[in-house]
Amino acid sequence: MTRQELIEQIKQKQSFLCVGLDTDIEKIPQCIIDNAKKEHGEEEWILPAIWEFNAMIIDATAPYCVAYKPNLAFYEAYGIDGMMAYEGTIDYLKENYPNHFIIADAKRGDIGNTSKMYAKTFFEGQSQVDAITVAPYMGEDSVTPFLGYEGKWVILLALTSNKGSHDFQLTESPDGERLFEKVLRRSQQWATDEQMMYVVGATQGQMFEDIRRLAPTHFLLVPGVGAQGGSLQEVCKYGMTKDCGLLVNSSRGIIYASKGEDFAEVAAGKARELQQQMAVELAKIHFISPNP
Amino acid sequence: MTRQELIEQIKQKQSFLCVGLDTDIEKIPQCIIDNAKKEHGEEEWILPAIWEFNAMIIDATAPYCVAYKPNLAFYEAYGIDGMMAYEGTIDYLKENYPNHFIIADAKRGDIGNTSKMYAKTFFEGQSQVDAITVAPYMGEDSVTPFLGYEGKWVILLALTSNKGSHDFQLTESPDGERLFEKVLRRSQQWATDEQMMYVVGATQGQMFEDIRRLAPTHFLLVPGVGAQGGSLQEVCKYGMTKDCGLLVNSSRGIIYASKGEDFAEVAAGKARELQQQMAVELAKIHFISPNP
Repeated sequence: MTRQELIEQIKQKQSFLCVGLDTDIEKIPQCIIDNAKKEHGEEEWILPAIWEFNAMIIDATAPYCVAYKPNLAFYEAYGIDGMMAYEGTIDYLKENYPNHFIIADAKRGDIGNTSKMYAKTFFEGQSQVDAITVAPYMGEDSVTPFLGYEGKWVILLALTSNKGSHDFQLTESPDGERLFEKVLRRSQQWATDEQMMYVVGATQGQMFEDIRRLAPTHFLLVPGVGAQGGSLQEVCKYGMTKDCGLLVNSSRGIIYASKGEDFAEVAAGKARELQQQMAVELAKIHFISPNP
Repeated sequence: MTRQELIEQIKQKQSFLCVGLDTDIEKIPQCIIDNAKKEHGEEEWILPAIWEFNAMIIDATAPYCVAYKPNLAFYEAYGIDGMMAYEGTIDYLKENYPNHFIIADAKRGDIGNTSKMYAKTFFEGQSQVDAITVAPYMGEDSVTPFLGYEGKWVILLALTSNKGSHDFQLTESPDGERLFEKVLRRSQQWATDEQMMYVVGATQGQMFEDIRRLAPTHFLLVPGVGAQGGSLQEVCKYGMTKDCGLLVNSSRGIIYASKGEDFAEVAAGKARELQQQMAVELAKIHFISPNP
């Protein structure tokens, strides 16, 4: 998906919400598990349980979001079954919701010939996605192999939402430049804002101004709203551009909002709530007309 | 595997060689592919081809190495088939060579709840390994979830072997500390040398002295000997400790040394050659007695 197509989707849905599919069988509703065990038996229930949960969450939330972000860790943890559920989820999205942007949250990055294989995994073949998150520690040749695909994106870690982000990302150079700022600056020599986004945690609200000085037009993928404590309004105040420029992710706050049989309905409600807050923010910058 | 058990293996085999299983179907011998197609058909040959190649390489090189390092990118690139070949390779190693140290070269690292899922993937269940490579960019809580497993190791990226290592890893703080040095220093607050190793590229020969000042006893996993141009002798001169303290990896230089039907034999020869050079280095520090 191109930058212009993504902006168009945000305009149409009045939303820049990304729903994180961190599907954990220890957290999904018991009714899904019981049903999968009943239909597929005690040995074979994991794949259909993950898949069924994802499909129901997707159907419920699709009107309110522009992107989905499956987190690879949660699928890999269930081995081959988990990876089949991941591929099934991507295929389901592509078939039923071809206008949703799909992000593989994989935090990959390795020497050139290895990153090339990761690029092949995520950007070629049937279950290809639109974007992959990449860690910058290994530098240019670990990132550039992902950039040779039209309409595909690298989402590079800049300033993450977790406590450990303070360990290295804020390290200052003698000239006062912090590591995440160096990542923003250097990486713009490798790719344009049509190919690269940055991960910036919503818990870092006061930093969005600094980030926008260095990356005034890039889209930012913003985790940490909700469960991790970030504020949507603060992110928008300091991070929004005239093209929106934000994809705000919520995972646990939507997909695990209810553990009952009403989980999909409750997830839809949570997504709609965020979408409505987002529409207000988009109207403020005249990106969309205010609701009548 | 514990540190003491690893040291014992190095002593027994007079080797600190790690064989990298970067198995790429575009590089494996044609005879393997032809045979897999003949036995399993044009649709189903990838899994058996990868698996057969790995098993033959392992059988040929096992006497000369103490560790194997499958690189996840190369398996993930072939989807479910690739991951089944990965799991089959791990299971084969554990069944037939239980004293070899297995490293999942995955370069993972994410916020705490996600790293916990990656730890589960690699350190629990049937196909568990001894160690996983982890990227440090996201800091402490991205690394510590891997540390709660007895006899399991984090191998943290410090100074890698690629050109891009210069982009961020050498960034200096005002007090002259470089980023990779900060990674070495800070991470020692999270784990001991019984749980953590560091990746230090062999192409960074002159840096090994600096690294040993900060991490005098830790094992270092050293890629970049051979294909990437690093020198074994230089690595040993500056990086070896009284307990050896090194695992030197070679991937392409061994597994693709011949593309003919003799590939396993040639791989064994290359591994033996490195093992013999390693025995000389180990004798120099009186870790083993010199060969008669």
